[in-house]
Amino acid sequence: MITSTSNAQVKEITALLKKSKERKEKKVFVIEGRKMFEEICAVPGRLVKAYFSEHYVREYYPDGRMPEIPYEIVADKVFDAIAETVTPQGVLAIVRMPEYTLEEMVEKAGTLVLLEDLRDPGNLGTIIRTAEAAGVSGIVLSRESVDVYNPKVIRSTMGAVYRVPFLYVEDFLETLQELKEKNVRLLAAHLKGTKTFDQADYSGKVGILIGNEANGLTDAAAELAEEKVLIPMAGQVESLNAAVAAALLMYESFRKQKKSE
Amino acid sequence: MITSTSNAQVKEITALLKKSKERKEKKVFVIEGRKMFEEICAVPGRLVKAYFSEHYVREYYPDGRMPEIPYEIVADKVFDAIAETVTPQGVLAIVRMPEYTLEEMVEKAGTLVLLEDLRDPGNLGTIIRTAEAAGVSGIVLSRESVDVYNPKVIRSTMGAVYRVPFLYVEDFLETLQELKEKNVRLLAAHLKGTKTFDQADYSGKVGILIGNEANGLTDAAAELAEEKVLIPMAGQVESLNAAVAAALLMYESFRKQKKSE
Repeated sequence: MITSTSNAQVKEITALLKKSKERKEKKVFVIEGRKMFEEICAVPGRLVKAYFSEHYVREYYPDGRMPEIPYEIVADKVFDAIAETVTPQGVLAIVRMPEYTLEEMVEKAGTLVLLEDLRDPGNLGTIIRTAEAAGVSGIVLSRESVDVYNPKVIRSTMGAVYRVPFLYVEDFLETLQELKEKNVRLLAAHLKGTKTFDQADYSGKVGILIGNEANGLTDAAAELAEEKVLIPMAGQVESLNAAVAAALLMYESFRKQKKSE
Repeated sequence: MITSTSNAQVKEITALLKKSKERKEKKVFVIEGRKMFEEICAVPGRLVKAYFSEHYVREYYPDGRMPEIPYEIVADKVFDAIAETVTPQGVLAIVRMPEYTLEEMVEKAGTLVLLEDLRDPGNLGTIIRTAEAAGVSGIVLSRESVDVYNPKVIRSTMGAVYRVPFLYVEDFLETLQELKEKNVRLLAAHLKGTKTFDQADYSGKVGILIGNEANGLTDAAAELAEEKVLIPMAGQVESLNAAVAAALLMYESFRKQKKSE
């Protein structure tokens, strides 16, 4: 049992929770909570090691029959000190990052979501969760976007992070160009859109372009879109939340693509 | 100039930022940032007093001509100590709470949004912001819902909190009943919905019912709805984020009501 916060594994977990660089180097990340843990156990080859608090073991393995996976038991106080969530549930795990390619995403599409410099962890988590629900086949992110493996993002995906393919790209504009060459039609959510989001053409393979929370899409990215798409707004609101704008376009695409099936 | 964090006004602001009870008793709340400050100045009778950091005064009133409102200047260090935001912009203000009635909301409706025990400040802020954009005439909240005047809610409304009428009600179910009697058709976003959200009937006055993030609507509230409305979901997602679900229904109502104009 791990009984000290100066234990090397505890330090490793803390570093993985806090540092994007550490996660990228080791190609693993940390998940927390019972639901996220149970879901990852069902995906072959992803779990590296689980960590249970004493309390968790008493509650979920009262007969002492532990699951057949690599694990450690951690003293309750130590567990509480490392857990990121407000009410730690007593389980966390180190999980291998999946690797996706643009090719497989495009082959399956459907609808792709293309995020330029999205910064807010809650927004990204919500977009991933909504993307799974709306049948999106993949998410492409510019390298300046928030890290998917940020614990706040992971938590707000409610498990969808395991199932929605995503990819960070070095050169976002070049990737948009590449997608166009592969017959993905780019629709940019834009305040200067000419068609409203419910009138746009979602046939074939569609890429929904969403920009940064404060500044929207760069002109260079918006110019690459086949259509700039407007979400009508009453009142004096200047823009919608990025996750809401993305949801409206994803669901419009979902609806249109279901109808054409 | 205020130069100490033990100043009585500083203590009052801190209490208002942190305590819902304090805000309710005094019937005022605190807003922060240049945009929120400028918007409230344009609304007659709402500003109680503004607080500027020295830095802010140098930047925005370099000639020393101050606006004709009640204000205090606060030493930069003291200002930074009280401001809630990560990068304080040097201005905050105490603002009078508006008072809305159910009657005026129903008279204008359109679309109402009815929130049962919504708990997350970010979700409520996003719902208020989206509600203004979707032309919603008012928001009704159960008393257990998160406080609109929580600084995190205020911030994420991006100013919409000044313009969208809202009302906390003691007895949520009784209010739903009252709305029905006033010919507001209640549509509940529900996992067991029978019609999808794009097939539901949004004609006349509509109330969109959204439940708690973890548990959804109570059965008692859902039973009062004329229709349970389903948002179709692909994949293994169990539910959508509450603000996303609300946005999809609000925009569907907005679209249908615009078409029937």
